Amino acid sequence: MSHFDYDLFVIGGGSGGVRSARLAAAMGKRVAIAEEYRFGGTCVIRGCVPKKLFVYASQFHEHFEDAAGYGWTVGETRFDWPSLIAAKDKEIDRLEGLYRKGLETAGAEILATRAELTGPNSIRLVASGKVVTAEKIVIAVGGAANPHESLPGHEFCITSNEAFHLDRLPKSILIAGGGYIAVEFANIFHGLGVETTLIYRGAEILGRFDEDMRRGLHEAMVAKGINIICHDHIKSVSRSAAGNLEAHTLNDRKLVVEQVMLALGRDPNTKGLGLEDAGVAVNEKGAIIVDAYSRTNVESIFALGDVTDRVQLTPVAIHEAMCFIETEYQNNPTSPDHELIATAVFSQPEIGTVGLSEADAAKRFEEIEVYRAQFRPMKATLSGRQEKMIMKLIVNSADRKVVGAHILGHDAGEMAQLLGITLKAGCTKDDFDRTMAVHPTAAEELVTMYQPSYRIRNGQRI
Amino acid sequence: MSHFDYDLFVIGGGSGGVRSARLAAAMGKRVAIAEEYRFGGTCVIRGCVPKKLFVYASQFHEHFEDAAGYGWTVGETRFDWPSLIAAKDKEIDRLEGLYRKGLETAGAEILATRAELTGPNSIRLVASGKVVTAEKIVIAVGGAANPHESLPGHEFCITSNEAFHLDRLPKSILIAGGGYIAVEFANIFHGLGVETTLIYRGAEILGRFDEDMRRGLHEAMVAKGINIICHDHIKSVSRSAAGNLEAHTLNDRKLVVEQVMLALGRDPNTKGLGLEDAGVAVNEKGAIIVDAYSRTNVESIFALGDVTDRVQLTPVAIHEAMCFIETEYQNNPTSPDHELIATAVFSQPEIGTVGLSEADAAKRFEEIEVYRAQFRPMKATLSGRQEKMIMKLIVNSADRKVVGAHILGHDAGEMAQLLGITLKAGCTKDDFDRTMAVHPTAAEELVTMYQPSYRIRNGQRI
Repeated sequence: MSHFDYDLFVIGGGSGGVRSARLAAAMGKRVAIAEEYRFGGTCVIRGCVPKKLFVYASQFHEHFEDAAGYGWTVGETRFDWPSLIAAKDKEIDRLEGLYRKGLETAGAEILATRAELTGPNSIRLVASGKVVTAEKIVIAVGGAANPHESLPGHEFCITSNEAFHLDRLPKSILIAGGGYIAVEFANIFHGLGVETTLIYRGAEILGRFDEDMRRGLHEAMVAKGINIICHDHIKSVSRSAAGNLEAHTLNDRKLVVEQVMLALGRDPNTKGLGLEDAGVAVNEKGAIIVDAYSRTNVESIFALGDVTDRVQLTPVAIHEAMCFIETEYQNNPTSPDHELIATAVFSQPEIGTVGLSEADAAKRFEEIEVYRAQFRPMKATLSGRQEKMIMKLIVNSADRKVVGAHILGHDAGEMAQLLGITLKAGCTKDDFDRTMAVHPTAAEELVTMYQPSYRIRNGQRI
Repeated sequence: MSHFDYDLFVIGGGSGGVRSARLAAAMGKRVAIAEEYRFGGTCVIRGCVPKKLFVYASQFHEHFEDAAGYGWTVGETRFDWPSLIAAKDKEIDRLEGLYRKGLETAGAEILATRAELTGPNSIRLVASGKVVTAEKIVIAVGGAANPHESLPGHEFCITSNEAFHLDRLPKSILIAGGGYIAVEFANIFHGLGVETTLIYRGAEILGRFDEDMRRGLHEAMVAKGINIICHDHIKSVSRSAAGNLEAHTLNDRKLVVEQVMLALGRDPNTKGLGLEDAGVAVNEKGAIIVDAYSRTNVESIFALGDVTDRVQLTPVAIHEAMCFIETEYQNNPTSPDHELIATAVFSQPEIGTVGLSEADAAKRFEEIEVYRAQFRPMKATLSGRQEKMIMKLIVNSADRKVVGAHILGHDAGEMAQLLGITLKAGCTKDDFDRTMAVHPTAAEELVTMYQPSYRIRNGQRI
């Protein structure tokens, strides 16, 4: 028996922290997990889950519109924001309960307090002031939306945190940012009837995604009626006499809206965590520096999830937690695998993607083949909705391996998940070609693109 | 130049026939294609395409219901069957036009006539009575719903053919059959508000599918309000004085409905085709017997698609056509690959499947691992809809290969398409495990089932 109060102390009740605590406790380790707010982390409380529920809510108006082409007459429809918020909150309560129950069943001690490090093996429980010790400490405190305090008038603005709890739906909103959070919320608010503008300083939304996805989504959003301004950003925000917000931009635009939402990146939650007292090193962004096994520079302290700023995704945090357990408690050193992670953007249309963009693949390989299809989904033929689905496969000519797959359109996220298996397994384009189509589906396009749309050799399209 | 009128004569303008004719013509061959009705075949005219459009139409009422949980109030909704039929017919006209255009562009001669064989190289065009000759003949005349003429009162019944053209939507319908067509139409009619009963002589719908899929779909259909009667079948149908139909069953049930639809299998369209004159052999069902290269017993005559009763699916017919072209015109003998064909049943919930059912895998392999998850899809949490998604992976323990994948629930068909690639490529369960989840999706369940639900060794569950 160690002389520490706990074998493992976990700070932070999000995806990575809960998984670490639960698995270790289930193995019989003496485990405590401290959470200052609610269990579930960004994902459950103010991220993936409520976001996707909002996405579902914002899609109904398209269902109502699409119905006409299929013979349906739909009476007047009305959306009530407080009802959605209440339903969403109830579901999050339920999920939080499941997280707590999982911990309790496994035998982890739940501490409803903020916890801060006081040394390599000691933690102060802020609620009681008590200091406890642990043989190992996992820091999994996640990250938070950057409030952008250098922006004059940032105090008038909201982030995604507040977007989940607005008292009422604004008539108009300006969203600053070009990342997936900005893009997803722009589509959500637009779908719920809010006049929506997105402003982004870069040349095109969703940097690092495949160019066809970026342009395709941009065009689809504009076609729906979302105003997108690129190459510009907000310089200041002020409240007008009429109560609206006025955003002034670098290029001298004045945008008058009811709400301004900033989606300008996320920061690790390391402030005041006692990292200095414990001697834990962070990088210039405040993210905890870890090695391939999620170890910090302090032998007894580990960090995983968003606070390490490796890949900020729920499944990655969970994976890192599972690798930590394997390494530290199962005598099976396992480093997290961050290669070929499929992801989705729950924009409308959705993006699903895995592997390299065309541009990145063209840089990495001498010659690539690009298979590209753009088509109207079957449902849109009768609904009359003007939308195009885009599917792309990027193939390394040398060994025929599919090195990138990109989809814009319905169910792109579900497809990306399964394409992820094929890329991870190193499947070739021939494996795709050998596969019989399932008709009528959208995904069948991915196995029936027999001829490349074009090739890129040494960076030149041929 | 051959002394025949054509290098290739294709009988039947469905998926397989059109692909053969188009590709051969595009290569400069002298090609004619005869179609007595409309181009597009079962798939476009009275199968996959109109069926899926009907499925879309029948899903809207669930969208309307689901909306409430997300804060929406939906006014009175009304469905107009003739509007759907008109919209569907317009879309089919458009698709047929595309098929014709593809043939014309490639340079194939389109003959609007029934065509019958008169010998190994000769065909009579029934419209004109003219006889033409061809070096090679492809028979791709497809199949048709069995009218079940031995059933007293079959003349009062419809098949799927007529279901696409009913003047009005019946108030009630009895569908006989347990295959995918019966099941799909039961869900369509129910979704459009028709009181629906399905009757099937077997123990459970969808024979040969995985047992969990069969039972899961059955339960979901019953929960929605579809009446399913198994272990019974219709003995006779009569028209009552009130104008309804009365179906009498083997087990002495009397079912009174407005329509009876028979979905009791499909027969090859070989009657009167002149197969005897040409010496082409058929099997006891009337299907044309072919070898691995779609060759009949007559050297100059080939057959592909449903008329051969191998696998009755559009993509298979197209694939057989492409193999025929490779073999006969590209000097590249290629036999169709009928292994590991992913398929979908567009029931509601949908089924997507590829590979072996649990039962078949248990027979074939000494030991299998079954990974099974049953969960409520995220959308249903707020809609309150009582539905469960089921996902199963069947793994051969000996080599870890995934030999079966089965999904019941939304987008199952899209998922089956991509799972099809993984099975075709011989991916192992480890490849699935190595793949990072995409959150929140339904498909992530397929890569996060780390422990088998159970194993089956030598037929015994352990």
